[in-house]
Amino acid sequence: MNYALLGYGVVGTGIVELIEKAKEDIDLYKNVNLKGILVRDKSKHVNKRYLELVTKDINRIFSEDIDVIIEVMGGINPAYEYVKMALIRGVHVITANKDLIAEHGSELSKIAKENNVTIKLEAAVAGGIPIIKPLVESLSGNKILSIKGILNGTTNFILTKMYHEGVNYEEALKEAQRLGFAEANPESDVMGYDTARKLSILSSIAFNGRVYWKDILIEGISDLDKEDFLYAKKQNCCIKLVGYSTKKNDRIYGVVKPMLVDSKFEFFDISNEVNSVILEGDAVGELTFTGKGAGMFPTASAVCSDLSDIINRNFIQSINYSYNNYSVEKYLPNKCEALLRIRTKDINTTKKLLKSNFNEIVDICSSKNDEIVVVVKVNSEIEMEKSLDKIKSCPYVSKVKRLVKFNTLVS
Amino acid sequence: MNYALLGYGVVGTGIVELIEKAKEDIDLYKNVNLKGILVRDKSKHVNKRYLELVTKDINRIFSEDIDVIIEVMGGINPAYEYVKMALIRGVHVITANKDLIAEHGSELSKIAKENNVTIKLEAAVAGGIPIIKPLVESLSGNKILSIKGILNGTTNFILTKMYHEGVNYEEALKEAQRLGFAEANPESDVMGYDTARKLSILSSIAFNGRVYWKDILIEGISDLDKEDFLYAKKQNCCIKLVGYSTKKNDRIYGVVKPMLVDSKFEFFDISNEVNSVILEGDAVGELTFTGKGAGMFPTASAVCSDLSDIINRNFIQSINYSYNNYSVEKYLPNKCEALLRIRTKDINTTKKLLKSNFNEIVDICSSKNDEIVVVVKVNSEIEMEKSLDKIKSCPYVSKVKRLVKFNTLVS
Repeated sequence: MNYALLGYGVVGTGIVELIEKAKEDIDLYKNVNLKGILVRDKSKHVNKRYLELVTKDINRIFSEDIDVIIEVMGGINPAYEYVKMALIRGVHVITANKDLIAEHGSELSKIAKENNVTIKLEAAVAGGIPIIKPLVESLSGNKILSIKGILNGTTNFILTKMYHEGVNYEEALKEAQRLGFAEANPESDVMGYDTARKLSILSSIAFNGRVYWKDILIEGISDLDKEDFLYAKKQNCCIKLVGYSTKKNDRIYGVVKPMLVDSKFEFFDISNEVNSVILEGDAVGELTFTGKGAGMFPTASAVCSDLSDIINRNFIQSINYSYNNYSVEKYLPNKCEALLRIRTKDINTTKKLLKSNFNEIVDICSSKNDEIVVVVKVNSEIEMEKSLDKIKSCPYVSKVKRLVKFNTLVS
Repeated sequence: MNYALLGYGVVGTGIVELIEKAKEDIDLYKNVNLKGILVRDKSKHVNKRYLELVTKDINRIFSEDIDVIIEVMGGINPAYEYVKMALIRGVHVITANKDLIAEHGSELSKIAKENNVTIKLEAAVAGGIPIIKPLVESLSGNKILSIKGILNGTTNFILTKMYHEGVNYEEALKEAQRLGFAEANPESDVMGYDTARKLSILSSIAFNGRVYWKDILIEGISDLDKEDFLYAKKQNCCIKLVGYSTKKNDRIYGVVKPMLVDSKFEFFDISNEVNSVILEGDAVGELTFTGKGAGMFPTASAVCSDLSDIINRNFIQSINYSYNNYSVEKYLPNKCEALLRIRTKDINTTKKLLKSNFNEIVDICSSKNDEIVVVVKVNSEIEMEKSLDKIKSCPYVSKVKRLVKFNTLVS
């Protein structure tokens, strides 16, 4: 079993190291050989092992006799092109690239099928946690009813810090960047795109049809401030960036947004870079999978899961839909509770407006300066959004922030 | 793909039902056909479906053209004989029978190998939770360092009830029996044997050598009383029947006993019939798997995981050791804390004895009547046991109970 690596950063280095170690200890890996490593800039890798295999020429990679490529270069281009090249040449692909899969996973899986090879992607979602393979193989007797996930370590680190240390978003982000948990350009993480991509991959597999990530309602965390966490604590909640999708009566609902998570809910204790996914199957009920969502060796561990499948001739495609594109609902018809923070120049008029729009209102603190903070209960998210639109359109009101209680939404 | 079912109780009925449903919805199951159902007493099943396939004659089962038997009859005999018959005849086996596997798993796996068939056992440990397959396949690049588990729903139901309702053991057991969570003869569950069997199966697979369940230190829960839970609460702990095994410097440690679980530890919130397993891999770190540990459809879901593997020609053996029998250590060399309850006729002398045996002692409540309740910290479990032996041998002392804090033991 010969493999080539596309990308030789932290994760790529971890994969090479883990496979080397496995070759010593585990029979299954004895005949796994590294045949080439593709990089963008050779000069960055002069101190690494296997320098003789490092090249920036993709053709040199494909000139070797390789059975599988492991793609950990990230980004869509040129990964897309290279992965396609591999599949067309009859080379299996293992990828950790959620951006690529969220965008082109369906097409690439089709190409793989046509060429009698497989594309596997355990490392693309939730890092080291075995989630794709259990979903595809272990839960094959179930219809999946819903997916709940904390799927992004960067934002979870930031939110954990804001919760425990009472710091502002900017401070927490800077600390995450200093420690290497956030990138210099954190947009994909903090805007919720990364979570949405991962949720879309899981949902597409689970619901047997493409759930495109851009069709999911996505809200990021950059608008959260210290006060949000103070109010959350008053409600016995923390704030988490949660991805949630469900299939009900053949309709798909998908959302990624910061939500209030009650202390009794298992996501409450998921801290820092840890990820957690709850899959709900019609036979098995709820299953929770928790572990490290990123990092050198956790990701390498997930890549090894795919690699051992290929060695064992388990070529089951992770993505194998029968359905084309789902349209995705943004708001659930379920009852829900939300914390509202409304900035207004006229407290009394706005309160009257609130009362005429919501039946159940609980004051969280006496309105101070220009802000009203309340918890409202409504019969559906759509009703909530409609009422909020009315309040937003009021000339006194300058800002409306709502944090839905996750527990009420999904119960 | 033709299958026969051995056992047609709750789980067997669930399996038939789930496979029937899967046949309608999932391509993979289209050609799965039920060919025979073995029961002990036909008259008990007259109202069930597929009565024409029900027989108490094992030879009728094997006279059919079957590819796989699903064994859910439980107990060791005659399951052992029938499973062996199947394997020798070249029929794959799926079993939910942890008693059988804990006792004869190694031998049966060897027989399977010799006959080019597989024996799969996802349902034998932790019910619906995918744990065997992730351990064997997804974590193939890892050395497993430790296993922590709440693996028995019956005891966890009883302990949850004792914790929340302050009832005594006997009351909680009766309620569990009334609700069908405990059997009329609950010995195997409440004595910890069931947990030890499951822990031994996981440990044998994880550590690549047989860890025999009877070699594990096993303590049950029947000696726990109301007061234990009051003292546990004072320590911000609950009491859980925990299975723990670890491999350190080629030595295996394995224990099943009721322990104090701190409110910060993830097992604290595992209630009632829920199971939870934490696998620690050297690459991936800690992974937690949580879900329903028993029940009709969760167990059927796990059986379907094995069945779809066999349909997909994934014949990887769950049990595939390279090492024969491990000797199993009973006490860890780690520092640990324990709550002690010592019944004595001479409080003062016993206190002096405690002081001479333990450096760090914290009084939990002022000694009342004839009991001393303290928390002690020691440098190793062995040291703890030695000191407790000395105290037990004191003529004034009539009983010594210790509850180890799980968190301190494994940290």
